[in-house]
Amino acid sequence: MVDERTLIASLISLVGAETIANDCAIIPLEDKYLVATTDMLHEQTDFPSRMTDWQRGWMAVAASLSDVAAMGARPLLILVAVGLDRPERLYPLMEGAVACCREHETILGGGDIDSHQELTLVSTGIGMVEKDRIVRRTGARVGDAICVTGILGRAQAALQGHWQYERSLFEPHPRIKEGRVLGESGVTSMMDISDGLALSLHDLARVNDVGYEIHADQLSLIPELPADEACELALFGGGDYELLFTIPHSSLPLAGLDAYHIGDVIADRKVLLDGAPLPVRGYQHRWK
Amino acid sequence: MVDERTLIASLISLVGAETIANDCAIIPLEDKYLVATTDMLHEQTDFPSRMTDWQRGWMAVAASLSDVAAMGARPLLILVAVGLDRPERLYPLMEGAVACCREHETILGGGDIDSHQELTLVSTGIGMVEKDRIVRRTGARVGDAICVTGILGRAQAALQGHWQYERSLFEPHPRIKEGRVLGESGVTSMMDISDGLALSLHDLARVNDVGYEIHADQLSLIPELPADEACELALFGGGDYELLFTIPHSSLPLAGLDAYHIGDVIADRKVLLDGAPLPVRGYQHRWK
Repeated sequence: MVDERTLIASLISLVGAETIANDCAIIPLEDKYLVATTDMLHEQTDFPSRMTDWQRGWMAVAASLSDVAAMGARPLLILVAVGLDRPERLYPLMEGAVACCREHETILGGGDIDSHQELTLVSTGIGMVEKDRIVRRTGARVGDAICVTGILGRAQAALQGHWQYERSLFEPHPRIKEGRVLGESGVTSMMDISDGLALSLHDLARVNDVGYEIHADQLSLIPELPADEACELALFGGGDYELLFTIPHSSLPLAGLDAYHIGDVIADRKVLLDGAPLPVRGYQHRWK
Repeated sequence: MVDERTLIASLISLVGAETIANDCAIIPLEDKYLVATTDMLHEQTDFPSRMTDWQRGWMAVAASLSDVAAMGARPLLILVAVGLDRPERLYPLMEGAVACCREHETILGGGDIDSHQELTLVSTGIGMVEKDRIVRRTGARVGDAICVTGILGRAQAALQGHWQYERSLFEPHPRIKEGRVLGESGVTSMMDISDGLALSLHDLARVNDVGYEIHADQLSLIPELPADEACELALFGGGDYELLFTIPHSSLPLAGLDAYHIGDVIADRKVLLDGAPLPVRGYQHRWK
């Protein structure tokens, strides 16, 4: 078995470490950076069967917008390529895609369609950010607070049958506005946590020369579920499109922002939950 | 049966006619335009089985670069999303993708991988062009010369068993340099002709308020094949990554450019070959 992160790491010699280190590619353009990201979603592996096609279109766009948000950027446009099994699915898919673009003040600028046995959606997000506001995965400093936006675990809870959280899973809201505010607030590093909090912390640990310690009693858990289950969902569940970031304590609290302080950056290059190693577990594509 | 162009046209009310009218999305950025395009290719429908994975990676990038070239733009970066059936295919695919980027002076800036039964490659090309040099599909004027770069039909000839033209099919060279030169040469409209010359002329006729007349004896045919066969391949064959453009006669000849004058823009809104209607036929994805 080989997982997604191992496979991507095998490309470092070919494309450079910087290329795979961030949520988006980063291109300098005069006094700004252009950022760009692409996300592929397949019917069987990425879309729960209860979703509507409108929601599939929405989710594809949300996945790319979330990566743009993680750089502190504002989106310029979205492109969507569709591998289409049945022609009548195109319109509702694109209605959902356009709705997600409009909700986040961007446009669907183009795309491609191709005939395919299994529905496949690939969305590309392109954004722009002032050079002094860009936030990368690297840059965390010892003593910084570790924070996340929003309540964690609802998307995974829905996947596991708690259908009252279905909207969180099917119609995720990328944190574009929050990303822009955080870019102006002295955040030192950031990424989105669509594969789960634990995997995301390990992703940050790989590219920063620091460690991360979080505390179970500080996690932003689903209040209606038993604490143990809610904690498991928050740590290892996928599908939340929230932002994970580090920020000096002096910049806290962040007024008007739905964010929670869940731990601190430490000198020891480990990822710890209440002092014990946090397992490397979450949502990953795997190949036999 | 519904074809690709009919399906895309059904989205006009949703995304606007401008969105589907050009090879790339166009976003104004101060004194320049950002252009962006995405292309989806599937193993069974788009890649001949004789191709190597290196060539599949190359071709995916070439498809997007060709769209960037058609706007007169220079490429800034490429993103590649891969739906991967077997993990060992990733490296050669990306080697080919990176080689095509380097050859055309751009970079592979990022991507995504996903597990999938059938190999799927989606490349996204992002480019930049000065506002006064952008070329669109619209803008042709009555009396302009109709021109194409290069010899037409070799990719389709290979597909039909003339394997001496295999490299044209498997390793297409997008006309980036030619696109840049044409953007400075007073070209009035342009597109790439990856689905064949006839379909491309009909695409131009749909968005311009003019007609197109070409002449069989002016086509840039494969010299080694019988004229009838070569003409059929040039008109209706897919897989050539050449540029089709209109330009005032006063701007001809184009020094140092491998381009051929094949006909003229006419007032009558028809597409004609030697005075007779040119069939709407070429490479298109279709759904039952």
